[in-house]
Amino acid sequence: MFQSFEVASRPEQGPPRLQALRDVMRVQGLDGFLIPRADAHQGEYVAPRDERLRWLTGFTGSAGFCAALMKDAGVFVDGRYRTQVKGQVALDHFTPVPWPETSLSDWLKDHLPEGGKVGFDPWLHTPGQIEAAEKELAGTGITFERCANLVDLIWDDQPAPPMALAKAHPLEFAGESHDDKRQRLASGLRDDGVQAAVITLPDSLCWLLNIRGADIAHNPVAHGFAVLHADGHVDLFMAGEKLIDVMDHLGAQVHCRTPEALVDALAALDGPVLLDKSSVPVAVADALDGKVQWGSDPCALPKACKNAAEIEGSAQAHLRDGAALCELLAWLDAQAPGSLRETDVVKRLEAERRKDNALQDISFETISGTGPNGAIMHYRVSEESDSTLEDGHLLVLDSGGQYLDGTTDITRTVAIGAPPAEAAQAFTRVLAGMIAMTRLRWPEGLAGQHIEAIGRVPLWMAGQDFDHGLGHGVGTYLSVHEGPQRLSKISSVPLKPGMILSNEPGYYREGAFGIRLENLLVVCPAPALPGGDAHRDMLCWRTLSFAPIDRRLIVADMLEPAARDWLNAYHAEVAEKIGPRVSPAAKLWLDDATAPL
Amino acid sequence: MFQSFEVASRPEQGPPRLQALRDVMRVQGLDGFLIPRADAHQGEYVAPRDERLRWLTGFTGSAGFCAALMKDAGVFVDGRYRTQVKGQVALDHFTPVPWPETSLSDWLKDHLPEGGKVGFDPWLHTPGQIEAAEKELAGTGITFERCANLVDLIWDDQPAPPMALAKAHPLEFAGESHDDKRQRLASGLRDDGVQAAVITLPDSLCWLLNIRGADIAHNPVAHGFAVLHADGHVDLFMAGEKLIDVMDHLGAQVHCRTPEALVDALAALDGPVLLDKSSVPVAVADALDGKVQWGSDPCALPKACKNAAEIEGSAQAHLRDGAALCELLAWLDAQAPGSLRETDVVKRLEAERRKDNALQDISFETISGTGPNGAIMHYRVSEESDSTLEDGHLLVLDSGGQYLDGTTDITRTVAIGAPPAEAAQAFTRVLAGMIAMTRLRWPEGLAGQHIEAIGRVPLWMAGQDFDHGLGHGVGTYLSVHEGPQRLSKISSVPLKPGMILSNEPGYYREGAFGIRLENLLVVCPAPALPGGDAHRDMLCWRTLSFAPIDRRLIVADMLEPAARDWLNAYHAEVAEKIGPRVSPAAKLWLDDATAPL
Repeated sequence: MFQSFEVASRPEQGPPRLQALRDVMRVQGLDGFLIPRADAHQGEYVAPRDERLRWLTGFTGSAGFCAALMKDAGVFVDGRYRTQVKGQVALDHFTPVPWPETSLSDWLKDHLPEGGKVGFDPWLHTPGQIEAAEKELAGTGITFERCANLVDLIWDDQPAPPMALAKAHPLEFAGESHDDKRQRLASGLRDDGVQAAVITLPDSLCWLLNIRGADIAHNPVAHGFAVLHADGHVDLFMAGEKLIDVMDHLGAQVHCRTPEALVDALAALDGPVLLDKSSVPVAVADALDGKVQWGSDPCALPKACKNAAEIEGSAQAHLRDGAALCELLAWLDAQAPGSLRETDVVKRLEAERRKDNALQDISFETISGTGPNGAIMHYRVSEESDSTLEDGHLLVLDSGGQYLDGTTDITRTVAIGAPPAEAAQAFTRVLAGMIAMTRLRWPEGLAGQHIEAIGRVPLWMAGQDFDHGLGHGVGTYLSVHEGPQRLSKISSVPLKPGMILSNEPGYYREGAFGIRLENLLVVCPAPALPGGDAHRDMLCWRTLSFAPIDRRLIVADMLEPAARDWLNAYHAEVAEKIGPRVSPAAKLWLDDATAPL
Repeated sequence: MFQSFEVASRPEQGPPRLQALRDVMRVQGLDGFLIPRADAHQGEYVAPRDERLRWLTGFTGSAGFCAALMKDAGVFVDGRYRTQVKGQVALDHFTPVPWPETSLSDWLKDHLPEGGKVGFDPWLHTPGQIEAAEKELAGTGITFERCANLVDLIWDDQPAPPMALAKAHPLEFAGESHDDKRQRLASGLRDDGVQAAVITLPDSLCWLLNIRGADIAHNPVAHGFAVLHADGHVDLFMAGEKLIDVMDHLGAQVHCRTPEALVDALAALDGPVLLDKSSVPVAVADALDGKVQWGSDPCALPKACKNAAEIEGSAQAHLRDGAALCELLAWLDAQAPGSLRETDVVKRLEAERRKDNALQDISFETISGTGPNGAIMHYRVSEESDSTLEDGHLLVLDSGGQYLDGTTDITRTVAIGAPPAEAAQAFTRVLAGMIAMTRLRWPEGLAGQHIEAIGRVPLWMAGQDFDHGLGHGVGTYLSVHEGPQRLSKISSVPLKPGMILSNEPGYYREGAFGIRLENLLVVCPAPALPGGDAHRDMLCWRTLSFAPIDRRLIVADMLEPAARDWLNAYHAEVAEKIGPRVSPAAKLWLDDATAPL
């Protein structure tokens, strides 16, 4: 299986390691050391070698960091992980810190003497992070100092860096050769007056060169660094053993070099060199001292705007993925309440997806949360938390696959037995928000922050809301969480045709039930309407995800007619597109599940 | 009358004045001079003395500026004024420049030699404006130089500065004494570690000291500058002859000084001193050189969040104002199509408002645009443009009053005779957006940019939209356009209880018809709902404006049931609240106009 349910850490592992770290800190003359969750590529997922935060503290969340001082050790976690961290770290040695409410600098002011020195590994932090903290600490005498990674010095059995073979991503799915991409972006670099750009994000690098890898679970990326020059050639810094299968594909304009050669190569570049302050390691900026021009990763926006081949590939992947999910849902409906556990659903769903030869991995660990577990937004089912699907539960099932032609991410919430009335009412509001966003047409130029509310209004009108964004960007056979596009109140990036985003409103009643519905959507130019403004370019969505929405959870007269019409049309399309792809038993179930409301 | 219809300028006035200006520029060794619309207080309206842009160029819009060079003279105007400017300036001497699409610095680069010197009056520009332009001109050798106002040197019959008497604003309407306000804000200054703040915006100054004036048409403000010290006392720099009636009211903690004493007094202050970069004159920042702490005008947010007395006063003003508007609408409906002109409506409306002794002024020049004129968003009817209300026209009527207890701003669009079907359909969409915003509940912490779309969706779904914000902040017996709160895609200021905003969606078909509907709303804490999230604080609106919405323009089956229910309930409230305040004839009309849909 791609997914595991093992408990990956224990609180008792932390204290002796923290003691060993403090011994090294003392030798180095440091009063503190920072241990982030991040690796040098600032991704959401990291390789086992880079799980330093988990190794040291026991905390397994996907974001956060530890500030280890001589007497105190703060574990900074955001709202998603407040409860989890308390069960995962030894609380007599580690102190959970609510973050970003408490900033690193505020906490250091309270816990370090004036003039305290805090070490950090310059490969694991961005200039943006360090500069912000230094600015807030001005006048305190507290300083940050670059140093070797002290955790690596004491972690005896630290895993080796991942060395998965990179593979060429076929032009059929990429839709644009890496030569064309390099030339297109190089032209932009020349327009901006820079000599080169350093690419450090793995999905940017893989998109640019049309390669994929397996260095990270669930993310088909190859770790490395690239320098894109203003003439279109690339220096690729990646272990040679990973590149064996792609040398021909990369061709003469991509010069393969060892990762160890990066720093000297950067120092030898002519400036100005474009760096992205939010993602580049401090060590890269240091190597380019005096030649840096800050800006955005030049791959970010072109990658986000998918071309026709990527959109069509993604649509095809979604149809196969939808069929696998429908098989699962049909099977699930045939089981009696009380007869299954959360992990049974995860295993069966992965087995259904594995029937497709194009499946390379799941796109993230499936969230299968029943009853009260459904209210935990980032629930990961483990052997210890695994719960039975009881009568009256709602099951939140959030999952996806990595296929050669696309990445999927879909959530359905399913009634187990007879659902409580208030859960059905909330479900209907969540659905109404999802439909309102799906049906929306909006003028070009607006960002996620300007339209996100449309997916929340039905909940708001009932005094309800949910504490996550409405949607995130999604790659094509790349990261399931991709920037810069988002449906979020903090996203000011204008939405553009070709961007794929999730549309996933939810509702969570702590200790009782959770609800989430999620389809992936592509931004498209909206067709002109009779009577519409001729001079106004507008955008709309095309839905990629096809699977039934549980009609037993819908309070039909709470939906306005246009929303009901949309749902019936969507279900008819699900039946038409998915029906021919499933088993006879699932087909029977599907016909019933997609009947008009 | 408060309003005039005269044509305030002629294109032919500009060229000889431009020639005179160039002669002075040459003497001063300058290659250019900037003539903004603004005065030293950066308000939307200026005194006749400060109408330098109009005097020099002929352009009368409420925003824009002229960059006069030796050969060229660019008149920079935004999208609202593209057509108007062409009719108002001598096009063989002045060149309209689309702004902000073309920035001042880009235009200067194209029209000035390297090393060109551009003069500006440091009282009429903010450091934010000058710094932004200087940054963009880095490397060109083009510089900005402070100088005397060259227009004032050549404007022989320039009017004197306004000298209207300031009056005390009664505590009954202000709701908080100026002593309490000064102490409350001073406490904030001490928290921020500043010694003083300079207040340069007239509405901030008048709010802080609970005074009102008449230095500007339609805006009950007194021009002056104030320094609020961290101990709560104020130095007020205002001509003594304006202060005769308010000396007792101001009391011992407000030290009245002459305007001429300002610069020396600033130079003598201990720092740091809080200045607002977006509104303070360069000359004020210069006088405080080295002692400035940039921040926000400390009055802005407290002023925007009205207290109970201000809200109740405003509500009362709106009831009387609504009665005046209903008298006008009843009369208007009794006139035959083709029998009235736009100015007849303006005059009659002002006469109705003047029957209220509390009326001090209109709050802006009434927009009365019939047929195609209604599609001109900022239409000002003049003797030349005055048009007849014809059968099939829609009349856009946007007006307001300044009352001692509040400021009103209301727009109604009225059918003259039989309206075209597509106008009625668009009207219904505008109304649906207005209702959706009015009914909205939303979580605390969101800004205008996060919810503005709610008022546009019905138009968007039909491929339509409008090119102005959904709403602006409104003062209480102060400016009808007040910051920082806005319902706009660029407003990131969180909405807070007590803020008054307009809700004014519209639709404009060039050459055919215009539609706008506007009510003023107050932000209120939303009452808890059964089943709602107990831990979530939400906000909602209370409507202040009461006048019928033209039922002849509503396509009833385009409104969803909840919107129709809202409209009927609103009309019932209009009948109940306004009915007892109008004449018998208007009451008969009102009963019909507010009948259920």
